[in-house]
Amino acid sequence: MDLKKLEDILKIKLPHIGGVSFQKDDVIHCENRIGGTVLPLGVAGPLHINGQHAKGDYYIPLATTEGALVASVNRGSKAISASGGASSGVELVGVTRGPVFEVKNISQALSFKKWLDEHLSLLKKEAEKTSSHLKLLKLGARITGNYVYVRFYFNTGEAMGMNMATIATDKIVSYIENKTKASCLAISGNFCVDKKPAWLNFISGRGRRVWAEAIIKKDLVKTILKTSPQKLFEVWLAKCMMGSIMSGGMGFNSHFANVVAAFFAATGQDLAHVVEGSMGVTTMKVLENGDLYVSVYLPAVMLGTIGGGTKLAIKKEALSIMKVTSSDALAEILGCAVLAGELSLLSSLAEGSLAKAHTRLGR
Amino acid sequence: MDLKKLEDILKIKLPHIGGVSFQKDDVIHCENRIGGTVLPLGVAGPLHINGQHAKGDYYIPLATTEGALVASVNRGSKAISASGGASSGVELVGVTRGPVFEVKNISQALSFKKWLDEHLSLLKKEAEKTSSHLKLLKLGARITGNYVYVRFYFNTGEAMGMNMATIATDKIVSYIENKTKASCLAISGNFCVDKKPAWLNFISGRGRRVWAEAIIKKDLVKTILKTSPQKLFEVWLAKCMMGSIMSGGMGFNSHFANVVAAFFAATGQDLAHVVEGSMGVTTMKVLENGDLYVSVYLPAVMLGTIGGGTKLAIKKEALSIMKVTSSDALAEILGCAVLAGELSLLSSLAEGSLAKAHTRLGR
Amino acid sequence: MDLKKLEDILKIKLPHIGGVSFQKDDVIHCENRIGGTVLPLGVAGPLHINGQHAKGDYYIPLATTEGALVASVNRGSKAISASGGASSGVELVGVTRGPVFEVKNISQALSFKKWLDEHLSLLKKEAEKTSSHLKLLKLGARITGNYVYVRFYFNTGEAMGMNMATIATDKIVSYIENKTKASCLAISGNFCVDKKPAWLNFISGRGRRVWAEAIIKKDLVKTILKTSPQKLFEVWLAKCMMGSIMSGGMGFNSHFANVVAAFFAATGQDLAHVVEGSMGVTTMKVLENGDLYVSVYLPAVMLGTIGGGTKLAIKKEALSIMKVTSSDALAEILGCAVLAGELSLLSSLAEGSLAKAHTRLGR
Amino acid sequence: MDLKKLEDILKIKLPHIGGVSFQKDDVIHCENRIGGTVLPLGVAGPLHINGQHAKGDYYIPLATTEGALVASVNRGSKAISASGGASSGVELVGVTRGPVFEVKNISQALSFKKWLDEHLSLLKKEAEKTSSHLKLLKLGARITGNYVYVRFYFNTGEAMGMNMATIATDKIVSYIENKTKASCLAISGNFCVDKKPAWLNFISGRGRRVWAEAIIKKDLVKTILKTSPQKLFEVWLAKCMMGSIMSGGMGFNSHFANVVAAFFAATGQDLAHVVEGSMGVTTMKVLENGDLYVSVYLPAVMLGTIGGGTKLAIKKEALSIMKVTSSDALAEILGCAVLAGELSLLSSLAEGSLAKAHTRLGR
Repeated sequence: MDLKKLEDILKIKLPHIGGVSFQKDDVIHCENRIGGTVLPLGVAGPLHINGQHAKGDYYIPLATTEGALVASVNRGSKAISASGGASSGVELVGVTRGPVFEVKNISQALSFKKWLDEHLSLLKKEAEKTSSHLKLLKLGARITGNYVYVRFYFNTGEAMGMNMATIATDKIVSYIENKTKASCLAISGNFCVDKKPAWLNFISGRGRRVWAEAIIKKDLVKTILKTSPQKLFEVWLAKCMMGSIMSGGMGFNSHFANVVAAFFAATGQDLAHVVEGSMGVTTMKVLENGDLYVSVYLPAVMLGTIGGGTKLAIKKEALSIMKVTSSDALAEILGCAVLAGELSLLSSLAEGSLAKAHTRLGR
Repeated sequence: MDLKKLEDILKIKLPHIGGVSFQKDDVIHCENRIGGTVLPLGVAGPLHINGQHAKGDYYIPLATTEGALVASVNRGSKAISASGGASSGVELVGVTRGPVFEVKNISQALSFKKWLDEHLSLLKKEAEKTSSHLKLLKLGARITGNYVYVRFYFNTGEAMGMNMATIATDKIVSYIENKTKASCLAISGNFCVDKKPAWLNFISGRGRRVWAEAIIKKDLVKTILKTSPQKLFEVWLAKCMMGSIMSGGMGFNSHFANVVAAFFAATGQDLAHVVEGSMGVTTMKVLENGDLYVSVYLPAVMLGTIGGGTKLAIKKEALSIMKVTSSDALAEILGCAVLAGELSLLSSLAEGSLAKAHTRLGR
Repeated sequence: MDLKKLEDILKIKLPHIGGVSFQKDDVIHCENRIGGTVLPLGVAGPLHINGQHAKGDYYIPLATTEGALVASVNRGSKAISASGGASSGVELVGVTRGPVFEVKNISQALSFKKWLDEHLSLLKKEAEKTSSHLKLLKLGARITGNYVYVRFYFNTGEAMGMNMATIATDKIVSYIENKTKASCLAISGNFCVDKKPAWLNFISGRGRRVWAEAIIKKDLVKTILKTSPQKLFEVWLAKCMMGSIMSGGMGFNSHFANVVAAFFAATGQDLAHVVEGSMGVTTMKVLENGDLYVSVYLPAVMLGTIGGGTKLAIKKEALSIMKVTSSDALAEILGCAVLAGELSLLSSLAEGSLAKAHTRLGR
Repeated sequence: MDLKKLEDILKIKLPHIGGVSFQKDDVIHCENRIGGTVLPLGVAGPLHINGQHAKGDYYIPLATTEGALVASVNRGSKAISASGGASSGVELVGVTRGPVFEVKNISQALSFKKWLDEHLSLLKKEAEKTSSHLKLLKLGARITGNYVYVRFYFNTGEAMGMNMATIATDKIVSYIENKTKASCLAISGNFCVDKKPAWLNFISGRGRRVWAEAIIKKDLVKTILKTSPQKLFEVWLAKCMMGSIMSGGMGFNSHFANVVAAFFAATGQDLAHVVEGSMGVTTMKVLENGDLYVSVYLPAVMLGTIGGGTKLAIKKEALSIMKVTSSDALAEILGCAVLAGELSLLSSLAEGSLAKAHTRLGR
């Protein structure tokens, strides 16, 4: 694959990616700017997806300096597509902001929590004054001592929406302070949880939950991935389950973060949200007919097709490679790319050593 | 600050950053490359550092599309430098690779663990055949059922060294399989733990542990940060301690990941290592004289001054802005930049709401 | 305090505790029974409580072989009571059972989750056929691959209710399997989470959430606890916050488990639920007038006043010491006893060493 | 099984267990004692063990009010013994105490850590002045800000040793404060980590690490456990791996805590140490010949055969049932009992529902 060939296939032009350049009138949010930096960008695919929102053959733009990463997603895509493609699903959880309030005591805290639950519709109204693109979906509050942590969940449409959520939360907080005895100590009380690993994100989700799965025919596991479903299963179990357990992990996968980081860099997402994207679970099982079932679950995907870095023309071009119609579709494509990456890396691990293992152990 | 001014101050030329370009003969590890992507790059500073390795005034290159990020680190740097600068320290833990071995049973696992401990010097010898830049520092093994997870720690000099470590581990694994009954299921058993949040990284470290600290005079907290040491302390306690606790977190900080991501993008580090970099702790306390003590601790910083993305000329330029002499120095500069970011964001939070809080609560 | 004196104060008789004996007609659920074992039982208090449910002066029965434990809760109770007593609050979360279901794929999983949400009222009806003492409160489902984990929350009245919940879940599961394509792999899929440390319990609660708090006058901190509010605060911050963080903990407290274990042993609760009871947070702060605010939060308290071990006459006697009228009251008394234990142990730590610390550091 | 029969088999007398009584001259550490409480005690077994330290057929004393628990361990023991018995292993980690020190800054912290490492032999000497039964094994220090957390590991022989460790740590701390600029804020800085769930205990161990395993013949899985190795494997994977992952757990098992609590109550251990004992991993796999491999790993077992509650005659009797010769042997017996409990409960879960699942899913 090279630029010319991709442009021909997709019938689009990618001048900025090809030329690695800013556009003159790009809106750039970076103070004290002295210029820019660059990352090589390659494409993996085509990856066939039968998703809820993404349907068709996709080329995946990945910006990285890590050798083998694009090749790995490419190989995984080949195995998936040859097996009929990946399925995917997405659920909007909402971008979250989690202020911390201070009250006098437990009794006041419990009353405050009750007040919040009872006034959700009024808080919605306040929040939605700040933008026509934002909806307050729900809230969840937790009390410890005289602190109350409140997590607001917002639908911010096609934008990742962190800034929109902050502005809306500020509005809500003012309203709350006017109407109750609670005072806000910080508009972000790390109950968001933004850009930090946290079980709250894993369990309650953040942004979007994304699932992707495929059934890889056993013959294709052999010819394309150079291993077998059984070996893959054993490596997956030892690594993604038991290995992550033994290390006290939140990432029960092989390398979600690699694919998420390269995809985010290419498409103008916030690179610090790789943290949320590194969490999640890969699943494998050998089906009764000997084929391989593989799936990924990403509980907290933070991305958007408008706003933030996506305003740069070069990022828009990357999005145009995938002809994305919505952030839901973009999330599904990412999920499937992550799936391809898992399949390929686990195969490399399995092929590299498991064969020897079995001969030697002679069980 | 603009490009010209920075070049004049530093007495260097930054043509690639200024022109946002690849160099013709750049070695680029990215398959199916169709071009590249760009990120705006700004500088924060000067930030005065009295570290073990970094000493002097530093401009911090940050590549980001998040508005306010560079400005925030800049403001933090100003407060720190005006107070006499930041101190920092670094400890090499070593890049780690953690294969998983299979044995027959617990008895064999215990014998195998003993064998590993007794043969460390031989394993060192094997590992060090693969590169003159690599040393095997130590190993740690954990047993569950018939699995044995072994974590090898390598000194890879000025390189981040993940690839070097993998090659060395492969060599070690072959040696082990020849000499023992253990068989390697996967050369990475998620006991590394590479690019996934994990308590093993937090507790045992990975790459380098980095600390940075400063004492900010109370007057400067007021004039530069627009808040007070006491308010900062209260916000820090409610957010970085209690808020992270309430959300089941591994990041007891405000936004390490933002600074780490922007710094890594600018200097050619692996963006997926932002995951490790997002972990860690910010500490604050009000000293008896009313000044503010602030520190950060990053338990797992993965970076290098050679290899990987640093081979690109544009990344070398970013390193040249900091005149870095070693990866230890680079790690300390990052630590101090993270410190500046914490100080500034926590101040914004404190200033925005805490004042109102106290009036209202009337405690 | 001795038996006679307590009996006189309370105007009750405690023959079984005094005689350390089973009652002939005790219903004892213990197969292959060869006899019994004993634990010494002491009382702490009186502890003055102004709770939502518990109001008055309470003696706390504690069964333990750990020297100083009863004395510690006693000292804490003294300081709390002399300061006007503890406040407390309780929230019923519900006992939970979390089966795991298997479906064909993600699409089926998403449909199944939707079906569950839409059929909650029918599931309630099924569940409530199994006992007139049980209500199904809500459910929460999570999907990974082709697994669906569902957490059912039950109100089981005054009983701890784990068995009731299991029977009700079995009924629900049968109904679900009849009506959907999902199949239950295990009626407990560790999504309960019963008797294992887990963030799901911390974040979403289990059984009851319990809070207790007190304001200890600074003079009483000095005379009874032999330390000062400021020293206590510093020790709390270094230990319960930072120390628990540095060790990757789920228990941000000093020794909840000690008090919970001794209270559970005395009152006939399930000793393995000490695991849930060991989680939680202690909070301290120095108020503007110099007094000490201290609170505890236990997110997952599993207990009851009927059923299980409470059927033994000797456990009923222990409950009678507290004249408990409900499980909510019992939970509040436990919370306040835990508060007393925290206050006393942290004081011992502070008194033992912090004084020296400050002189020596000369900050 | 009843008392008479057990006494005949073991050729011992168990008057206190049979009579459920204190002995007059029992040393009882419980202040404000008004009497005692009782728990029914049953025995499971015989369980055949081929351990490093425990060898032979064992009856397991379990004190509980939870119906089915003894029966469950009994059934598991039957399956294990009929298959040739369980193997086990134990590793002394040492009881730990983790004080927190305060220093001036990072530089002083790093020097202090170095000083500790260099003076280990002197610290050993100090520690060992406090008891001839105690050895200081090693230490590990972690720095954040101006705090230094130090974890001391002690061999306390046959005693669980928490009190011995505290006294020794106090001695060490005095020495350190005399020789360095560090000051101890609290002799327990939650870096121990005593009676709280924590990854530090999971990863670095506490007390003893214990492993137990068995291979259960497939026919016996069918006849005794009423299920099949494959079904057991599937339930284990869905529950102990994926279910614990989905709930953010530290316990990758079915019900370690149940067995540990009942065993600890019977044998005079500290009931709050059930917290540490609830952590750990169960492993299952189907061997090539169709038999079932099952193992358990408990990373932090805190127990002893002397001291604490074991001083009560009734607890000594429970120990005599197992003819324990050492705490290592006791730990192995506990491990094997836990193994039996896992096997039986997972079988109940598998038998109850998995059969239906497969018919219905018709994969």
